[in-house]
Amino acid sequence: MAELADLRITRLGEPRYDSPLAAFVAGRRTNEHYVSEDDRVLYHDTVSDLDGRAPDPHSWPSFEPGGPRRRLFFAPTRTKVGIVTCGGLCPGLNDVIRAIVMELALHYGIGEATGFRNGYLGLTPAGPDPVRLTPEVVHHINQHGGTMLGTSRGSQDAEVMVDRLVELGIDILFVIGGDGSMRGASKVVAEVARRGLEIAVIGVPKTIDNDIPFIGQSFGFVTAFSRAAQSISVAMVEAQAAVGGVGLVKLMGRHSGFIACYAALANHEADFVLIPEVPFALDGPNGLLNCLHQRVKERGSAVVVVAEGAGQDLLELSGATDESGNARFADIGVHLRDSITRYFAEQGSALTLKYVEPSYAIRSVRPDPHDAVYCLRLAQSAVHAGMAGRTDMVVGRRHNRFIHVPISLVISERYSVAPDGDLWMAVLEQTAQPVDMTL
Amino acid sequence: MAELADLRITRLGEPRYDSPLAAFVAGRRTNEHYVSEDDRVLYHDTVSDLDGRAPDPHSWPSFEPGGPRRRLFFAPTRTKVGIVTCGGLCPGLNDVIRAIVMELALHYGIGEATGFRNGYLGLTPAGPDPVRLTPEVVHHINQHGGTMLGTSRGSQDAEVMVDRLVELGIDILFVIGGDGSMRGASKVVAEVARRGLEIAVIGVPKTIDNDIPFIGQSFGFVTAFSRAAQSISVAMVEAQAAVGGVGLVKLMGRHSGFIACYAALANHEADFVLIPEVPFALDGPNGLLNCLHQRVKERGSAVVVVAEGAGQDLLELSGATDESGNARFADIGVHLRDSITRYFAEQGSALTLKYVEPSYAIRSVRPDPHDAVYCLRLAQSAVHAGMAGRTDMVVGRRHNRFIHVPISLVISERYSVAPDGDLWMAVLEQTAQPVDMTL
Amino acid sequence: MAELADLRITRLGEPRYDSPLAAFVAGRRTNEHYVSEDDRVLYHDTVSDLDGRAPDPHSWPSFEPGGPRRRLFFAPTRTKVGIVTCGGLCPGLNDVIRAIVMELALHYGIGEATGFRNGYLGLTPAGPDPVRLTPEVVHHINQHGGTMLGTSRGSQDAEVMVDRLVELGIDILFVIGGDGSMRGASKVVAEVARRGLEIAVIGVPKTIDNDIPFIGQSFGFVTAFSRAAQSISVAMVEAQAAVGGVGLVKLMGRHSGFIACYAALANHEADFVLIPEVPFALDGPNGLLNCLHQRVKERGSAVVVVAEGAGQDLLELSGATDESGNARFADIGVHLRDSITRYFAEQGSALTLKYVEPSYAIRSVRPDPHDAVYCLRLAQSAVHAGMAGRTDMVVGRRHNRFIHVPISLVISERYSVAPDGDLWMAVLEQTAQPVDMTL
Amino acid sequence: MAELADLRITRLGEPRYDSPLAAFVAGRRTNEHYVSEDDRVLYHDTVSDLDGRAPDPHSWPSFEPGGPRRRLFFAPTRTKVGIVTCGGLCPGLNDVIRAIVMELALHYGIGEATGFRNGYLGLTPAGPDPVRLTPEVVHHINQHGGTMLGTSRGSQDAEVMVDRLVELGIDILFVIGGDGSMRGASKVVAEVARRGLEIAVIGVPKTIDNDIPFIGQSFGFVTAFSRAAQSISVAMVEAQAAVGGVGLVKLMGRHSGFIACYAALANHEADFVLIPEVPFALDGPNGLLNCLHQRVKERGSAVVVVAEGAGQDLLELSGATDESGNARFADIGVHLRDSITRYFAEQGSALTLKYVEPSYAIRSVRPDPHDAVYCLRLAQSAVHAGMAGRTDMVVGRRHNRFIHVPISLVISERYSVAPDGDLWMAVLEQTAQPVDMTL
Repeated sequence: MAELADLRITRLGEPRYDSPLAAFVAGRRTNEHYVSEDDRVLYHDTVSDLDGRAPDPHSWPSFEPGGPRRRLFFAPTRTKVGIVTCGGLCPGLNDVIRAIVMELALHYGIGEATGFRNGYLGLTPAGPDPVRLTPEVVHHINQHGGTMLGTSRGSQDAEVMVDRLVELGIDILFVIGGDGSMRGASKVVAEVARRGLEIAVIGVPKTIDNDIPFIGQSFGFVTAFSRAAQSISVAMVEAQAAVGGVGLVKLMGRHSGFIACYAALANHEADFVLIPEVPFALDGPNGLLNCLHQRVKERGSAVVVVAEGAGQDLLELSGATDESGNARFADIGVHLRDSITRYFAEQGSALTLKYVEPSYAIRSVRPDPHDAVYCLRLAQSAVHAGMAGRTDMVVGRRHNRFIHVPISLVISERYSVAPDGDLWMAVLEQTAQPVDMTL
Repeated sequence: MAELADLRITRLGEPRYDSPLAAFVAGRRTNEHYVSEDDRVLYHDTVSDLDGRAPDPHSWPSFEPGGPRRRLFFAPTRTKVGIVTCGGLCPGLNDVIRAIVMELALHYGIGEATGFRNGYLGLTPAGPDPVRLTPEVVHHINQHGGTMLGTSRGSQDAEVMVDRLVELGIDILFVIGGDGSMRGASKVVAEVARRGLEIAVIGVPKTIDNDIPFIGQSFGFVTAFSRAAQSISVAMVEAQAAVGGVGLVKLMGRHSGFIACYAALANHEADFVLIPEVPFALDGPNGLLNCLHQRVKERGSAVVVVAEGAGQDLLELSGATDESGNARFADIGVHLRDSITRYFAEQGSALTLKYVEPSYAIRSVRPDPHDAVYCLRLAQSAVHAGMAGRTDMVVGRRHNRFIHVPISLVISERYSVAPDGDLWMAVLEQTAQPVDMTL
Repeated sequence: MAELADLRITRLGEPRYDSPLAAFVAGRRTNEHYVSEDDRVLYHDTVSDLDGRAPDPHSWPSFEPGGPRRRLFFAPTRTKVGIVTCGGLCPGLNDVIRAIVMELALHYGIGEATGFRNGYLGLTPAGPDPVRLTPEVVHHINQHGGTMLGTSRGSQDAEVMVDRLVELGIDILFVIGGDGSMRGASKVVAEVARRGLEIAVIGVPKTIDNDIPFIGQSFGFVTAFSRAAQSISVAMVEAQAAVGGVGLVKLMGRHSGFIACYAALANHEADFVLIPEVPFALDGPNGLLNCLHQRVKERGSAVVVVAEGAGQDLLELSGATDESGNARFADIGVHLRDSITRYFAEQGSALTLKYVEPSYAIRSVRPDPHDAVYCLRLAQSAVHAGMAGRTDMVVGRRHNRFIHVPISLVISERYSVAPDGDLWMAVLEQTAQPVDMTL
Repeated sequence: MAELADLRITRLGEPRYDSPLAAFVAGRRTNEHYVSEDDRVLYHDTVSDLDGRAPDPHSWPSFEPGGPRRRLFFAPTRTKVGIVTCGGLCPGLNDVIRAIVMELALHYGIGEATGFRNGYLGLTPAGPDPVRLTPEVVHHINQHGGTMLGTSRGSQDAEVMVDRLVELGIDILFVIGGDGSMRGASKVVAEVARRGLEIAVIGVPKTIDNDIPFIGQSFGFVTAFSRAAQSISVAMVEAQAAVGGVGLVKLMGRHSGFIACYAALANHEADFVLIPEVPFALDGPNGLLNCLHQRVKERGSAVVVVAEGAGQDLLELSGATDESGNARFADIGVHLRDSITRYFAEQGSALTLKYVEPSYAIRSVRPDPHDAVYCLRLAQSAVHAGMAGRTDMVVGRRHNRFIHVPISLVISERYSVAPDGDLWMAVLEQTAQPVDMTL
């Protein structure tokens, strides 16, 4: 569990400049809508969590709040900023890029930034040339999905990347990426420290699966499950129109079933939700096959929603030879499709199975307004943190408070659906599927 | 400020029955995704809030958590439930109705509920007959905006309504409505208590303006500001195409400017946001008219977003004779339209003003998936609270925790945009409008 | 009725250059998907229309087909082209601009065009400077509503405009605008002819009301009625939730009720549709007020859709003094609202009237895919016509064939809903409103 | 080519009853919006088509117009009607069902119809029981995708089905289905005739691929290509963000490439469109692989849209052994994916290929407003035809006229994209792909 020491944010040094926003924040006090820069946001939020702790709240685990500071480490108007987007697409990447550039220009007098293209590749000599990002260039990019900077997967050598930052005189690097990219950012931070440079690295965590811990919800997630819910509707409509109709929807979620859970709740129509965090069996009285068969008999059709990381234990048992001779390629969607088909045939029951896999349609769209607001505010927070000389951290919003979280912490574990939490309970209440499908 | 005593929830009596969900929740402990029914959710969340308090967290202000209980006050399968929707439309009303009925049926074995029609009117002899709500009846209603029960404004005599509840044998009444309706619910509670009846009254707070305190965000709000953001886009497109184009968008928000703020942030294109919480002047160097005129000169066009409750002081000065001779009917949208038109004419500047007022288009739609999930979970929470014998309370989700809040508290004040909070700061950062427009 | 002579298209002169598309169209013959440039499209399409005509089809009224020609009047790569958008916004303006620029560049080797800003104003010295339109500039504009060139209403002096065209060396001017703009284009053509210049003027007819004759459906119309249908849904949802609910929707359509008719058919939920082409009474047994009152009594609520130009005779009778003392400002929507309110009060019936007027929300959006395709193909057609040296004409698609129509013809009359046509019949079938509401 | 005799519609007998709509249509004459029931709609529409024909237009190929008749064969109020939906889903099925039921009830006094479930299966003893269709039952079904009657593929024995019709006393059977279903309908007609029964069979042609001839555009097609265009956007966004990005989109279209063409035109972003009607090579200078490789080198990314029926000749060469050992299962999408991957590897070029296959997402949605109107009017037309005693025909709208077409004709051939027509030309103009990709 995180303790106070784990939640400390690294600072490049003492602040050196007055912020153009100083007058703006002067005299503000913590209230329901604001946390003073001198205050901290508690990690815990229940009586039982705090019961028995030492009496001084300052000793309790707590986060540094986000937001503008009265004093800055980097000079307004003169600071050089780089931005890079890494990993898979996620709704909101362009919104974050745009908002960083706009915030720098409007409030810190920094009229342009350097956009590194195609992820960390753009920070190497082999990569594409960077682009100049000005308010004019980014003005409309939020109206498009994807990322105007392009992206790529994988990391690059930290020394090479720091060489490039030094060469271009970059003071602050904003990394928009997932846990892999944050590991890469962490290495850049270490190399920067090793050389004794004053370069800040601020992360904006991106994960369409919502599997990054300590930051509340990740940007783009609401948009993603909203689109995923449409796919469940597609499957339901197809299933209901068919004789013995079964809709099978495979959604993103290698390690965390958030998209599957939220999409199923939004849609109200999934009969079974299968996620990586909760094991299930195919066979047995409570196994998927028997329950699904029963549901189709009772209602004429049924919909199964499965996260791509669910039931991996089932694949280890059967995957190697059945589909492709290669366990790495085992696919729970295909495995379920084949298993259901076989079972219904064995039972002599009619089956019309429709397999829906929305994949890219979920992540390439522009964000819904809710996520658009969140991207904007995250990016504003990131700029404030960078200008104040924070580094080795990401911005997040937890329990409605914008906070700073050390990179080390967000890459230390995964956020996942708690089998005994209220989200999974809501799913069970909604689907009425067996609580334990392994029996 | 709320203290512990204010946050106590009334119980009709000791629980008398095992819950069908008992095994389900047994042994669960508080974690990031769950709060045990024996635990409480802290009201405060920063170090400064708790610094200097008595050391025992049990003495601090805290909320009862929502969720299923191991023991119930009302008998599963035999409890009679009523549902009523009151006041103006809001996205998600049908979702809440549906989820209450489904939760009762699936988990408490209560196969039907009584739907009172057209708000509290339906609880009087003069009102329309109630309808029978079963899973079949409500199955698809979430796919439509509005409320299948109809609604009406205004309260009715509490004695008459309690007579009706008694006549129909209702054990739990779910009231989905705004602060006015919650005042009505409060009177029903008092009358129930006066007669010594065992009828629970549980509120699901509804306010499209998001102006109910202590409950976090209200259902339908995300959908509402998403639609409102579309209207800002409409105004922007019109303004940009015209010579001296000004888009003026009047949005909901009598007392709280949340919709205006969030819609403006989502859209990124408002130049000025005017809300009830922050005064502004028309005249003067920082007044709207001069600033707007300048903005149009610089950029060719501009967009003004105004909440309907903004600038009421301006209307008191000028409204009475100009528009309709009646201060009650003064309309800030019309007033701004006329003032801008006059000012641009005085300055000899071209003006093409487009006035957009989306009104009903924002509130009559079905909820976006994010709100759909929230409605579902709020409704599940409400059912759990009712079955456990709670009364005189509403359900809410604050800082991501489902909680119970006394009705007295939610009608004690309004939730509004803090002029020194981070939301308004984000708006100022985004629009770059003057911090103080009264100078 | 149009005769052959009326349908002749003016040519600037004999073609002088081979088209880069020559090989492409060589050898094509008229078929279901193509009309040869040597063929013509018949105006008439029924046996009765042609019965009794002279036997030679060449003598019958017929249109010149659209499409690429083997030979051109203007030189590929060297021709200078201007584009102007005039009048109110309409979905698809940016699509047409984009497609003209792309077609010129990709197929005629003309890499840029001159964009005149803010309508005909941009063709005068007082107007804004023109912009350079290249494939890069226009690449994404179709993703936005409005027009990147801006627009304005009203015409300008033809001599001044031709001076400007000559000054800039423009060979072909594409005018995207409504009937007023086409009258302006006509004057430019006359002035060009008077001076003996070789400047082609090609119109792309724009009318959100679909009231331009001979061209089939106008671009953006499908998008417009689709949005209008949403407003009818809004009104219906509001009406159904209220006690004595009446939804009143005022839609565009000064002279033609197409938007009202199609939106009502799309929506299936209007109870009464009122259009300029079909008179109706308020009073009397078949008058709107009595019928509406009956409908609300029977069904609990009702929706009235009214085109802004409907019932003008009613306003002439009552408008002058009742609303604003000025007949020009009489507003059928407001008049109906007041009349309905008065009538229900007189009858002692409950009424909750919701007045919805979507206005700009309908016209400022980007086009639906159907209209996007149509805009693209219209623009391609316009470019082919211009390069071939046609002038004083507009492009259209009638009965699925792209055709050329003289400007004189499209401004000679309005296209409107025929009271004895099948569209109005479908509306009557759908609404079951009285066939004659004046009785 | 169709001649007059081919276009004659079968009548069950002389009309026997006055239509309730008689007064409504009396005295109407053919005009731009209406064709009199005594008139006919010409098949041909160009001068060259009619040049040299016998002078009497009555002898030319022409269609019987749709619409209400003054006299009916079947008795209003007493006629029994059946409805069945067959084959794959298509946007608008529920709209057609709803409109048939509403038209029967509102205008012919026939308050209910029999809905046969799961296609022709529902017309056999083995099938599910039929459902009663009343205005109440169908009132909201148009708000949902799919078909409330369910569907199935394949035909059933005509004798068995006619037995069932006789058993239930059905007078008119409306068949909503594709060419296979129309063949089935044809057999029912033959069996009805063999027995000398007076049962009318009216088809409403359904084909999401738009491949049914003589009927203009099929319902749901506009909605389908609109959704397909979204998938192209998805592919484009993914491709543009990647290093060596190629988006590959497989769309419906076994025999006709209409969806691929229209979606590509709507989207403006496809670089290559491959359809069944136009052969292409993978290799060679104009082959897909070289052209695609070039395009990616020039622009950084490219999008390929392929209809599922395209390039089947390529699969015959390579399919049998490569993918699954079974030529029937060869899949052009997978084949292209593999071929592109191999080619880029051979060239040593970076490639990030994203394969998008929207499948069910296109066909399970509710129709866009344009299609909703069309479904409504087609259904009204079908009811009029049935009540007038027509049989063995389908309704359609060709060149904006509602017409009757013999079933024999619509199953005689397929409608497809003409390689020398203007649609394909527009695609070539838009994509700038080689005119002949086999060179």
